[in-house]
Amino acid sequence: MIEYRNLKIALLGAGSVGSRVAELLLEHGDELASRVGAGLELVGIAVRDVDAERAVNLPRDLFTTDAESLILSADIVIELMGGIEPARSYILKSLNSGADVVTGNKALLALHGTELFEAAEQVGAQLFYEAAAGGAIPIIRPLRDSLAGDRVKRILGIVNGTTNFILDRMDVDGDTLEGALATATALGYAEADPTADIEGYDAAQKAAILARLAFHSAVPVEAVYREGITGVTAEQVERARRAGYVVKLLAICERVVDPVTGSEGIAARVHPALVSRLHPLAAVHGAKNAVFVEAEAAGDLMFYGAGAGGLETASAVLGDLVSAARRHVAGGPGVAESLTASLPVVEIGKVQTRYQITIEVVDATGVLAKIAGVFSDHDVSVETLEQSPAAAAAPGAEHITATLVIVTHRASEEALAATVASLAGNAAVATVTSVMRVEGA
Amino acid sequence: MIEYRNLKIALLGAGSVGSRVAELLLEHGDELASRVGAGLELVGIAVRDVDAERAVNLPRDLFTTDAESLILSADIVIELMGGIEPARSYILKSLNSGADVVTGNKALLALHGTELFEAAEQVGAQLFYEAAAGGAIPIIRPLRDSLAGDRVKRILGIVNGTTNFILDRMDVDGDTLEGALATATALGYAEADPTADIEGYDAAQKAAILARLAFHSAVPVEAVYREGITGVTAEQVERARRAGYVVKLLAICERVVDPVTGSEGIAARVHPALVSRLHPLAAVHGAKNAVFVEAEAAGDLMFYGAGAGGLETASAVLGDLVSAARRHVAGGPGVAESLTASLPVVEIGKVQTRYQITIEVVDATGVLAKIAGVFSDHDVSVETLEQSPAAAAAPGAEHITATLVIVTHRASEEALAATVASLAGNAAVATVTSVMRVEGA
Repeated sequence: MIEYRNLKIALLGAGSVGSRVAELLLEHGDELASRVGAGLELVGIAVRDVDAERAVNLPRDLFTTDAESLILSADIVIELMGGIEPARSYILKSLNSGADVVTGNKALLALHGTELFEAAEQVGAQLFYEAAAGGAIPIIRPLRDSLAGDRVKRILGIVNGTTNFILDRMDVDGDTLEGALATATALGYAEADPTADIEGYDAAQKAAILARLAFHSAVPVEAVYREGITGVTAEQVERARRAGYVVKLLAICERVVDPVTGSEGIAARVHPALVSRLHPLAAVHGAKNAVFVEAEAAGDLMFYGAGAGGLETASAVLGDLVSAARRHVAGGPGVAESLTASLPVVEIGKVQTRYQITIEVVDATGVLAKIAGVFSDHDVSVETLEQSPAAAAAPGAEHITATLVIVTHRASEEALAATVASLAGNAAVATVTSVMRVEGA
Repeated sequence: MIEYRNLKIALLGAGSVGSRVAELLLEHGDELASRVGAGLELVGIAVRDVDAERAVNLPRDLFTTDAESLILSADIVIELMGGIEPARSYILKSLNSGADVVTGNKALLALHGTELFEAAEQVGAQLFYEAAAGGAIPIIRPLRDSLAGDRVKRILGIVNGTTNFILDRMDVDGDTLEGALATATALGYAEADPTADIEGYDAAQKAAILARLAFHSAVPVEAVYREGITGVTAEQVERARRAGYVVKLLAICERVVDPVTGSEGIAARVHPALVSRLHPLAAVHGAKNAVFVEAEAAGDLMFYGAGAGGLETASAVLGDLVSAARRHVAGGPGVAESLTASLPVVEIGKVQTRYQITIEVVDATGVLAKIAGVFSDHDVSVETLEQSPAAAAAPGAEHITATLVIVTHRASEEALAATVASLAGNAAVATVTSVMRVEGA
């Protein structure tokens, strides 16, 4: 048996991911040590309550409530407690004491990433965060290193398992949003309070992290446009299905060029969107995640896997731990995550995409021309138009109506919003039933 | 404009990938420099013939035929000349002079990887090779770093674009192998001599590289079992389609456990296989590549993208170049790729998988029992059996025949081979039409 020098590992938090990290580290410590060339000694696990029940059976004497002392004894600190404070202070304290830090805390990175990366760079330490976006999926390292010689054009990510599970149920089983959410809750895919998932907050945090990395620019999480899935109806999903699309909640980060000035910017947004069934993202079912990357030289890439789960996410954390440990053995400063560009985040009104608009119109002569006129008045170009008789006239409806499904060419959000407002006020229009963005083509 | 110190980059080879690397480096040099914190100066391109025509227009004065002098002037050497010699000698010379090396030379790595990685480690340099497997797809870095804390169970890779294009045409268009190959050649997806692709040599080299990395063990390319696609018929593809499968050429690297001793080994093999249409690999169309990884903690992951192409592969090379350059700026030795395990490669006969066997049998009483007896005699357990009347009796056939399609449970290759030999010699059997492995379930 080879004897290595030991690196001291401190773990902050023993929730679903943390407890699995501890378990795997204790179980496979020797194998990991051989890969690093140094022992990985778990010196302690800081928790709020030492006596709390945990999913995994871990040695009682590893637990402590004194995180601050634990940090000071460690070469590498793994922060999996979540939340903003005291996680932020603990990470700063760890970095300032010269320890490398591994974290999966997306909320913290989305809010205070720049501060934390700068702190790491100042002391030559490194902050690893593969688990913060995409769970088990290696996406941070590919974006940071593998694509470092390329220019990312766009990222389309299914980065929230709960909402993908719900939308997939609606698509595959024809379920309603409420029904699918209830199933997700029963199966443990949704939390008791699902707000962070279904309203897109979780996805927006990941979008901010991915956009920062892809475009080497600061992307504050508040600048990410966000719409959740609560407005998605069974009818929209069914209409999408018939038209060859599937509805997905996408986190989209893209490089945009101002058509007038030619200057570059970033658009970052989270919202439900129609994705062609021929697109690789359409095959991402259940609670799986995938990140589709379009790069100038590499072309289209996709990274697919489990976006959550204690054991799965622990894999990403341990990968970072091995990287941090190898770095300690090799010596030298960590790779800085400093921002080398400063592309502005473009406001949502200026973002361009395609749209599918469904409207109920009065079925009378000249209506089509009026509708077409509204689109052309706002410089929104129609790509396809399909008219069908409305399923049934609404009770009390004055006129027989027809359903129009219009797909536009690329147009700005503000032009589209003006078009929809104008449609809603047009006498020929009974209702604007649905507006969905079309992505990935 | 920031002034950086310059890192000197030497390029060996200006073929389809090399010329694109030079072009992108000259075009985006400033942007890459900002990401590295040092200038990336292309100091020369070594080629055999300075005056040869090239796809990309590059400054004439960069070219030289004196590779040896060029190497000695460089901080980082990019080897894209291909072949074994002089590429091997040049890489050794580069490493020994203290330069980091970026290569996409899969044949060389599959044959001399251990020697080259050891040479790098001895001098504290690093050998980067993201472009050697999966083209533009980041797969080396995720396996080496992101999954470093996990245990890989199995890799199923579509790692050859030519054969995937051909098999996809056969599946989607009902084309014959010859017809699909002709199309691949006409479209530039197949080389004039397609042997390396369609006989699986290219895929076997990639399997050796991926298996080494995933299992931290030496996997000589000669130890990779290899079958190409030349035996795949339109009938097999059609039968697969009807049964819910698609035929793919897979590179499979898996951890296997000896059922008697419990000791671990590696199986590495390349052959056509049936993949369920529900498996993510089934959706990999055309010349695209994908690597599906099953890991103990991370679960199932897939990495998808362009497996070849000059521009696409150049992205992977430049990502490695940025990593190498960042390493030079940070200082310290490179990450060693030393083997930390020594799992033996298991011979093909001991490998277990599932099989689909198609046989024409004499349609007479008791035949099914006889056939079932042959399987049980060899301890091969039948999972499903489907009998249908043969389409037409062969001219001169003595008996009316029926077609049996049998799918087995997991069985060893040697048990299966013995079963097939026994079937072929059985009076009840007219022909064993097809034997296909079933993977990914």
